[in-house]
Amino acid sequence: MTRIAVIPGDGVGAEVMAPALRLLQVLNVSEGLGLVFDSFDFGAERYLKTGVALPAGQLETFREDYAAILFGAVGDARIPDGAHARELLLGLRFGLDLYINFRPCRLYAEALCPLKGKRAEQIDFVVFRENTEGQYNGIGGFLKPQTGEEVAISTEVNTRRGVERLVRAAFAWARRKGKRRVALGDKSNAIPAHQLWLRVFREVAAEYPDIEARHLYVDNLALQLVQRPEAFEVIVTTNLFGDILTDLGAALVGGLGLGASANLNPDSTPLFEPVHGSAPDLVGQGRVNPMAMFLTAGLMLEELGHSKAAARLEGAVARAIRQGQVTGDLGGSLSTAEVTEAVLGHLEA
Amino acid sequence: MTRIAVIPGDGVGAEVMAPALRLLQVLNVSEGLGLVFDSFDFGAERYLKTGVALPAGQLETFREDYAAILFGAVGDARIPDGAHARELLLGLRFGLDLYINFRPCRLYAEALCPLKGKRAEQIDFVVFRENTEGQYNGIGGFLKPQTGEEVAISTEVNTRRGVERLVRAAFAWARRKGKRRVALGDKSNAIPAHQLWLRVFREVAAEYPDIEARHLYVDNLALQLVQRPEAFEVIVTTNLFGDILTDLGAALVGGLGLGASANLNPDSTPLFEPVHGSAPDLVGQGRVNPMAMFLTAGLMLEELGHSKAAARLEGAVARAIRQGQVTGDLGGSLSTAEVTEAVLGHLEA
Ligand SMILES: CC(C)[C@H](C(=O)O)[C@@H](O)C(=O)O
Ligand SMILES: CC(C)[C@H](C(=O)O)[C@@H](O)C(=O)O
Repeated sequence: MTRIAVIPGDGVGAEVMAPALRLLQVLNVSEGLGLVFDSFDFGAERYLKTGVALPAGQLETFREDYAAILFGAVGDARIPDGAHARELLLGLRFGLDLYINFRPCRLYAEALCPLKGKRAEQIDFVVFRENTEGQYNGIGGFLKPQTGEEVAISTEVNTRRGVERLVRAAFAWARRKGKRRVALGDKSNAIPAHQLWLRVFREVAAEYPDIEARHLYVDNLALQLVQRPEAFEVIVTTNLFGDILTDLGAALVGGLGLGASANLNPDSTPLFEPVHGSAPDLVGQGRVNPMAMFLTAGLMLEELGHSKAAARLEGAVARAIRQGQVTGDLGGSLSTAEVTEAVLGHLEA
Repeated sequence: MTRIAVIPGDGVGAEVMAPALRLLQVLNVSEGLGLVFDSFDFGAERYLKTGVALPAGQLETFREDYAAILFGAVGDARIPDGAHARELLLGLRFGLDLYINFRPCRLYAEALCPLKGKRAEQIDFVVFRENTEGQYNGIGGFLKPQTGEEVAISTEVNTRRGVERLVRAAFAWARRKGKRRVALGDKSNAIPAHQLWLRVFREVAAEYPDIEARHLYVDNLALQLVQRPEAFEVIVTTNLFGDILTDLGAALVGGLGLGASANLNPDSTPLFEPVHGSAPDLVGQGRVNPMAMFLTAGLMLEELGHSKAAARLEGAVARAIRQGQVTGDLGGSLSTAEVTEAVLGHLEA
């Protein structure tokens, strides 16, 4: 029995989680996966009631009793500056030491690409985003707050150990998957501290002479991703740059309605979440695109060792996309429920 | 008499500067601008000889004796980690307190846009990038360098004064130019110190009820720029995010061969530079695209108050582009010299 913690979260979170769980149940039965799902009500309501996004002791429970966490979305307009989103999501990423934020950008159908002249098979890269360091640490604050003399300070910290384990994970994955190229995105020409990234990257790359290692400043990387996405297979980068580059990557393959992500550490309980947020403007209309959540569930199956089930799920989503069985954001006219039925149909076919 | 300091710099810098000076001379004569050009040999050669990128006292000379600095490009493979580029370029930006990095992204011809279905007039936005603060300050360093315990630290600092003057400049420019929308890009949901940006933005926006003020997290902004660039007119953002977003913006309108920029402070000597670098792989072939440098020269004329000359220059470049008189990077087959002749022709027409 494999226990999965399910956190639907806020906004459209529940609307995409429910259909994802239906698909997972089908696979659970037909593939005999032995998955068991427990639901957790973390999100805005609970935060507004208790003032706490992630209850004490919860990390231990997840770490000890669960094989994975499946997360919907978080964010609520009643809570300023995304405080509970930060507390919950970053609390889980940092608290569980999930140092790899793994975000694939794969183009399932030519029509979804906003770029001219790209065939579907030309865009298929993965970003390894550092997920426990960088500028996501909350270190810093305000000197003379709310005065004309105010100074706002924020400190980015990267460690040799943190950078190295991520870079190693990226190269190891590349070799395992037969990829030929890994690119580093940093800003070491303007931020000298990023030279740590470059040094570690070069060291690890030297152990992989079969893989082409390319270093790009992040500004150039953003430009290249638009101009020649086909040149990339694996990108490794900082927490903050990974945040930006994966949204950019999502834009190249159909938008946030298809962005899946996995927060990984082989020695911890991984967290799976779509890249999109709680999309409050879409709530309750039954029109939200559940596919990012489906693909995210697929990443979870893969990580749990159920490669066949994972491939079936991704294949079913891909078929629905190619047949135009999609929601409005992808140019279709189907509802969340209709997309779910379509994917279910392909899954059972 | 208006004195202009000319710094061709490294790599292709001289190859784009010489033709730009030819165009400027034509305008100088025909419009009676009274511009006088002095050349400075700052760049890699001098740095390798002297160890200094920007000689002592030079900032004072520029500030007191020159109305503008026209810069080519900087960067040389013999100097690791872009040390002299950082010293020279950031030395000028910071040393002259040029707090506005003004970078227009305008689509001159539909064919140059990598995005499907965008008409030329749909992409025309300007980025106001903060240019004297943020993470470009060199503050930080390495704890236990070159060991397994290494920690790399870099501190982003933004001040109330620094943020406010930039945000004010963006809104004032928007009103002056009849723009209706200003967007802020920050990451205040993950980096609490960025809330300073959001607070200042809201305060200044309140003084401009006629202008729509929109706040986006930078990841979402990157995505939106690809999905709906037509939704943007003015973007105001941090130094680092501006660096990334303007390369992304350049990718949307034809690439770095067309990216112009102005580093401004109404009370100092402004610096004008194309967004591209020294492009060592292109040196000496006579094929580099000089148009970014031409457009940059146009921004200089505009800032010096020569609006008519500026419009003539931009118009001549735009006509050459629309007639396909362009270098290979823009899909043409002309050399640098041929593009220059074409633009000269349009200028004199
Ligand atoms: C060369 C580098 C330091 C510079 C920057 O990051 O500002 C460049 O990328 C730019 O955008 O002008
Ligand atoms: C909600 C926010 C803190 C988060 C991040 O910046 O990591 C999100 O943008 C993401 O990419 O998962």
